[in-house]
Amino acid sequence: MKRSIGAKTILYPTPVIAVSTYDENRKANVMIVAWGGICCSEPPCIAISLRKATYTYHNLLNNKAFIANIAGEEMVDKLDYMGITSGQNVDKLERLGLTPERCHNVNAPYIKEFPLIIQCNVIRVVEIGLHTQFIGEIIDIKVEEKFLDKEGNPDITKIKPVVFDPARREYFSIGDSLGKAFSIGRKLKIGN
Amino acid sequence: MKRSIGAKTILYPTPVIAVSTYDENRKANVMIVAWGGICCSEPPCIAISLRKATYTYHNLLNNKAFIANIAGEEMVDKLDYMGITSGQNVDKLERLGLTPERCHNVNAPYIKEFPLIIQCNVIRVVEIGLHTQFIGEIIDIKVEEKFLDKEGNPDITKIKPVVFDPARREYFSIGDSLGKAFSIGRKLKIGN
Repeated sequence: MKRSIGAKTILYPTPVIAVSTYDENRKANVMIVAWGGICCSEPPCIAISLRKATYTYHNLLNNKAFIANIAGEEMVDKLDYMGITSGQNVDKLERLGLTPERCHNVNAPYIKEFPLIIQCNVIRVVEIGLHTQFIGEIIDIKVEEKFLDKEGNPDITKIKPVVFDPARREYFSIGDSLGKAFSIGRKLKIGN
Repeated sequence: MKRSIGAKTILYPTPVIAVSTYDENRKANVMIVAWGGICCSEPPCIAISLRKATYTYHNLLNNKAFIANIAGEEMVDKLDYMGITSGQNVDKLERLGLTPERCHNVNAPYIKEFPLIIQCNVIRVVEIGLHTQFIGEIIDIKVEEKFLDKEGNPDITKIKPVVFDPARREYFSIGDSLGKAFSIGRKLKIGN
């Protein structure tokens, strides 16, 4: 039996994206975005949604560029700090001992200590409601070398990204492998 | 040291959303979408991106409604099957022994056997490139009662949703709790 719980922002899983941008004085800022995801394969794009009240919103409008930095689970308290503090009041990166590095592809800084960084240029701005969606075309991805597998792909089991649960407002780690995509369902095909 | 791996559709984590719709004959179809996420809090919305070549794409344009069904990890092979088979060729739900149920809020069917279903009306269609993004306003969420916690919220540790890793094209389970959001970062605030 199913019970209605009303119209709420619940979806599993959601990411924890540390979005870094430059402000008008070219100072690096970072905030956490859980409202987002991949939204196109060609060109490869990710979408992030922010409220207009955020410092990053104005940086995105000015520079049309951002980095989506993905952290490992050992940084979860730093991620949470980035989500509960505004760049209008404090230099979050400095406070956390993190290093903004200049990116040569897009006009946004990346966080040196983070294992995977996704460099994006904003190609579309979609007004939805309380949140504005920025669609970023992925220009390049950089990965810390020790987190690459033998084929040169990022290894999720080494990076250990954080999962956000918007229902319980809680962070989780990635668990065990459940199988290969485009593969484990083949046995269910008729006459496979 | 970071290495460039090029412009790829990589982000962690991504969801595995079973999107169910009616076709023009009011037959239920389902497909898997990993390109998606929450995109607005007010109104509560989720975005899903699909290629025009999919059966669901046309159903979405016709009916302007869909259900985002979230499965538990024990259904991962069924989810994968939904992703590698087209509704143009086979009745996927019938083949998998799953039951489409009529939804009274939106013009789309939900999957009875899935623990959490998100009922959406399409409020915006955004052409990006290979993928078209459909923004769905969440009208209601229904949850299997045994998967609710004491406060009446869906319990991710009971539902056990699946994580998709687009880099390795592999499914993962949800792991251990890493702490409460808007809380574990407080200790890093100055003078807290």
